[in-house]
Formats: sequence, structure tokens, C-alpha cells
Amino acid sequence: MQYPSKLIEDAVNEISKLPGIGKKTALRLALHLLKQDESTTEELSTAILNLRQKTKYCKICHIISDSEDCTCESIRKDRSMLCIVEDTPDVIAIQNTAQYYGYFHVLGGIISPMEGIGPNELNIDSLINRVKSSGGEIKEVILALSPTMEGDTTSFYIAKKLRPFNVKITTIARGVPIGGELEYTDEITLGRSISQRLIYDITND
Amino acid sequence: MQYPSKLIEDAVNEISKLPGIGKKTALRLALHLLKQDESTTEELSTAILNLRQKTKYCKICHIISDSEDCTCESIRKDRSMLCIVEDTPDVIAIQNTAQYYGYFHVLGGIISPMEGIGPNELNIDSLINRVKSSGGEIKEVILALSPTMEGDTTSFYIAKKLRPFNVKITTIARGVPIGGELEYTDEITLGRSISQRLIYDITND
Repeated sequence: MQYPSKLIEDAVNEISKLPGIGKKTALRLALHLLKQDESTTEELSTAILNLRQKTKYCKICHIISDSEDCTCESIRKDRSMLCIVEDTPDVIAIQNTAQYYGYFHVLGGIISPMEGIGPNELNIDSLINRVKSSGGEIKEVILALSPTMEGDTTSFYIAKKLRPFNVKITTIARGVPIGGELEYTDEITLGRSISQRLIYDITND
Repeated sequence: MQYPSKLIEDAVNEISKLPGIGKKTALRLALHLLKQDESTTEELSTAILNLRQKTKYCKICHIISDSEDCTCESIRKDRSMLCIVEDTPDVIAIQNTAQYYGYFHVLGGIISPMEGIGPNELNIDSLINRVKSSGGEIKEVILALSPTMEGDTTSFYIAKKLRPFNVKITTIARGVPIGGELEYTDEITLGRSISQRLIYDITND
């Protein structure tokens, strides 16, 4: 594609490096920015620059944070539960359910031999240390990884590593999604939701 | 949504101001940037800042350009044709067809009473002057506006304004799009493509 100016071309090239944004969308975004106040672009530019340069990771939970000190104290309540997730979006997703008030531990990825990610690339050692040094305060570790082959491998690895410690290990429920139609649920999910069926308790909500 | 850090929240807010990008996509883009080299974000940030601050408009054609001087000389060949378009993306689209080698004139919008855009907000006066002062060099003006009510109104207005000058006025062909199915073409388009049918010339390509 030919662009009418080098500046547009530069902007399109940079914007289209973002995932899911092609050259056409990038051009549309660039032309949109040209029509806005200069302050809009300045704020966008500053926000992404600050994001990349100043973002820190909590040295205990490894969650993206404004500082390296753990700020969980202020928002979480239940010290006895530790939820293991792959990355920060999962923390946000679980937080938004308002069903969990314990602490988190972000692995920073999952074990994936295909992509050359082994246990040592992940925050697993620090997890083990965290459980070990909690002095029994952590009672339950919830494995909240995606139900994929990589996720299951990682869960298995962590569960094995945690076995020596007196801690209950649980995993998030898998089954037919709420609102989903049985007819369109894949066979593996449906099969597991039958073999791992729950007792129907009318006193539960 | 709760974000784990103020920096992420700022970035998400700014990114989601772009058209077609919601909070979820913005978060995905922000987390993507966090995983890339710092240089990626710096280049993106600089490119969009430069785009907004340094972009100029050619004072003759009103195309987005690196300088205010007209650079058409270097890339266009046919001085006798002038193509009128709404905005810069249209210039790019027509250029990419490799079917047109004349000059362009960007209106910067179309007449739209609904949005309060009248002829005076557009580069129409400069168009008239351009045709007038070309001393007969411009032989044909092509109206390449979208076939909408606003586009047609603008075409009509410009055609009337250009009538005093000895210049041929044409408009881009409208009809069934190539590759389109008759069955799914809307009635107005199909109707016009019949009433304005062309002589089928087997010597044409």
C-alpha cells in the first residue's frame, strides 16, 4: 500500500504490530487520531509509554502492580487460600466474579515444551517457597489454569511439587458452561461433566 | 472492571478511546505491550505522537503530507484530470487500483446538514480556484464521492459550481460490484445498473 506521508506510514507500521490489528485498521486508527485534539494523542502516547516503563511486578504474587511491594493486603481478605493462575488477565477475570477473596500467585505462563517454556521459566519455585514459608497459614491451593493440555500438565507438575506440604489442592470446576446448550457442547467436556457429576443438592443455590 | 495497577487502567482508558476498541481489547493490547521489548512501545508511542504533531496538509490538494508543498509532481503524471474525494483514505484506495494517474483534490468531508457541515467547511472554494486558475490545463473533474445522499448532494453542488468553466465533469461508475451476486444486490443498485446499462463491447477487456 502507498501512503501519502511517511508519518502515516510509520504510525501504521507501528500500530499494526499490535495483535489483531492489520494495516487497514491501523490506517483507520491513525486517521482517527489525526482528527482528534492533539491532547488525545499525547495522553495515549504517554499512557502506553508509562505502562511499559513503569509497570512493576509484585515480588510475592507476581501480579502486575504499581509497586514491587505486595498490595494484596489492602484488597484481599482470606490468607488461607492461594489461587494459581497463568497471567494477570486471569486475576482480573476471577476478581470480577466476586466469588473469591483469597490471594493469587501468577505463574507468568504455563509449561509448554512446544514453545520452550519449562517449569524453571515460571514462578513455580517462588510458589513452593511461599507455601512452605507460610507456616501452615495457606490451607488451600486452587489450580485455576485453562483446561488445555499445557494447563493440565502444569497443574499436575505443581500438584506433585506441593504434595509434601500439608495443603489442600483443588482445581476449578470443569463442565458445561452456564447458558451453554448440551447439544453443542464438545464430547470431551460433556463426557467429563457426566463422569464427574455432582450430587444435586436443592439446598445449594 | 478492577485493574491490578493504575498504569494499566490509564493505558486501557486511553487505548479504548480509539474507534472499535473496547475495554477488553484495550486490556489485551496493553498486556501484549508489557510482554514486548521496551523499544516496541517507544516506537509506537513516538510514531503516533509524531503523526499528530507533524502531519501537514498539502495546501493545493489538501492531502495529508509530510510538507505543505505539493508533492504530487513526483508521483502523478496526468495534469489534465482532477479527482475529487472526501478524504485521504479515498486517495489511497484509488491510488492502489493503479487505474488513475491524475491529480487529487481532498474535500475534507462531504456536505451533511445533519452534522452541520456545509460547503464552507469543505475545500470547495479552493477547488473552484484551482480549476479556474489552471488556465484550461484541467480538462476533466472526476467526482469520486460515496454513492450516499450526502455524497450525491455534494457532487451536485460541486457540478453546479464548476458549470461556468470549460471542464468535463464525470462521476465514478455505480452498479453491481465485481464478484457480487445479482440475487443479493440491493434493489436500488440493481435498478440503476439496468437503467444506466452499458453497451457490451467485446473489444473492451
